[in-house]
Amino acid sequence: MSAASDFTPTPRTSVRRLPGRAAYDRATVFAILDEAIVCHVGFAVDGQPFVIPTIYARVEDRVYLHGSAASRMLRALADGVEACVTVTLLDGLVLARSAFHHSLNYRSVVALGRARPVADPAEKRAALEAIVEHVLPGRSREVRAPDVRELAATTVLRLDLEEVSAKVRTGRPLDDPEDMDSPCWAGEVPLRLAALAPVPDPQLRAGIEAPESARHYRRPAP
Amino acid sequence: MSAASDFTPTPRTSVRRLPGRAAYDRATVFAILDEAIVCHVGFAVDGQPFVIPTIYARVEDRVYLHGSAASRMLRALADGVEACVTVTLLDGLVLARSAFHHSLNYRSVVALGRARPVADPAEKRAALEAIVEHVLPGRSREVRAPDVRELAATTVLRLDLEEVSAKVRTGRPLDDPEDMDSPCWAGEVPLRLAALAPVPDPQLRAGIEAPESARHYRRPAP
Repeated sequence: MSAASDFTPTPRTSVRRLPGRAAYDRATVFAILDEAIVCHVGFAVDGQPFVIPTIYARVEDRVYLHGSAASRMLRALADGVEACVTVTLLDGLVLARSAFHHSLNYRSVVALGRARPVADPAEKRAALEAIVEHVLPGRSREVRAPDVRELAATTVLRLDLEEVSAKVRTGRPLDDPEDMDSPCWAGEVPLRLAALAPVPDPQLRAGIEAPESARHYRRPAP
Repeated sequence: MSAASDFTPTPRTSVRRLPGRAAYDRATVFAILDEAIVCHVGFAVDGQPFVIPTIYARVEDRVYLHGSAASRMLRALADGVEACVTVTLLDGLVLARSAFHHSLNYRSVVALGRARPVADPAEKRAALEAIVEHVLPGRSREVRAPDVRELAATTVLRLDLEEVSAKVRTGRPLDDPEDMDSPCWAGEVPLRLAALAPVPDPQLRAGIEAPESARHYRRPAP
């Protein structure tokens, strides 16, 4: 699928509150999925929903999750239960003149579906590499790749992106006309994820410098 | 309850993977809940879990959520379904010498329970004020408070903190001994939420300066 095409809204993914903030195009959805670092995965066990933060990667129309084969979340998801993968980027505080109109600027994606275990070794290796690359582009070429034992201890799940929606709020506060003369400051406080200087492992061998990608880390990846 | 006391782990909130990272004490849980800005709320509708990002506030042993009375999430939650409120702070990338040992430093809280609508007008007003204060301390005294119509249009839900766990990872990568001689850089890239300079509403009256709290915004609140 090209990034120009749209996901088809379903009754479950149609944004009903403030539908003007909804987006279903792949370009918007992919950009959000690629910029965020963690997602929040929702699944139910015995009727109780759980929401767990975890790392992921998008490859074309698929999201890959991974974890220990012993993980409660991975085992529940691998059973093929209905799941929800949500990614949120917080872009700013929206400070209005009234408490009621305070808001946040954000970009979020909600993807519904059933995750399936990846059995094919080549797809599994590629997914794990994509997850490392998602966090730090180029990193998979710098590090030792997973060995057979590590691959066996890791479960990789794949969620095909089919029922997907994005929601985006940008811009200024939307105050009521009767509040516009308020003496109260109004506007936005933009928020960004910032990376500090890399902290070397205390046991790092002498003379090894942090890679450029870590010294100038930013999202979205350059 | 004093912040020094502990939540009691249940089978549903006992951290099973890497239990050394688990925490159940109120001081740890409250600090995470108070520093994060948004939570991710999980709930199921017709067997399908949804995970929705939203603002919240903690007051003592309670978490308050709010939203439009027309919101699908608020209506589902107000029906008293099982819910999960998860809060995640991403503190850093953990870059190991092997792909397998890459990780993230983070602090997260998972709270399970049923949210209940807040009917008492005084508690509802206090909860909405707490939500504004959660985002920007002091803001509730600067802005116009909700009027009767706005209060009626807003649903406030309360989740009592009873089944709660925190999970925290800090520090260096944990590589295998045989990888320690690798020529690969290893360490942490610390991540922080950063606020940029406030952007005034284009319709802001002349001569109104952004409050100190917005000009020097940081989490946790000073």
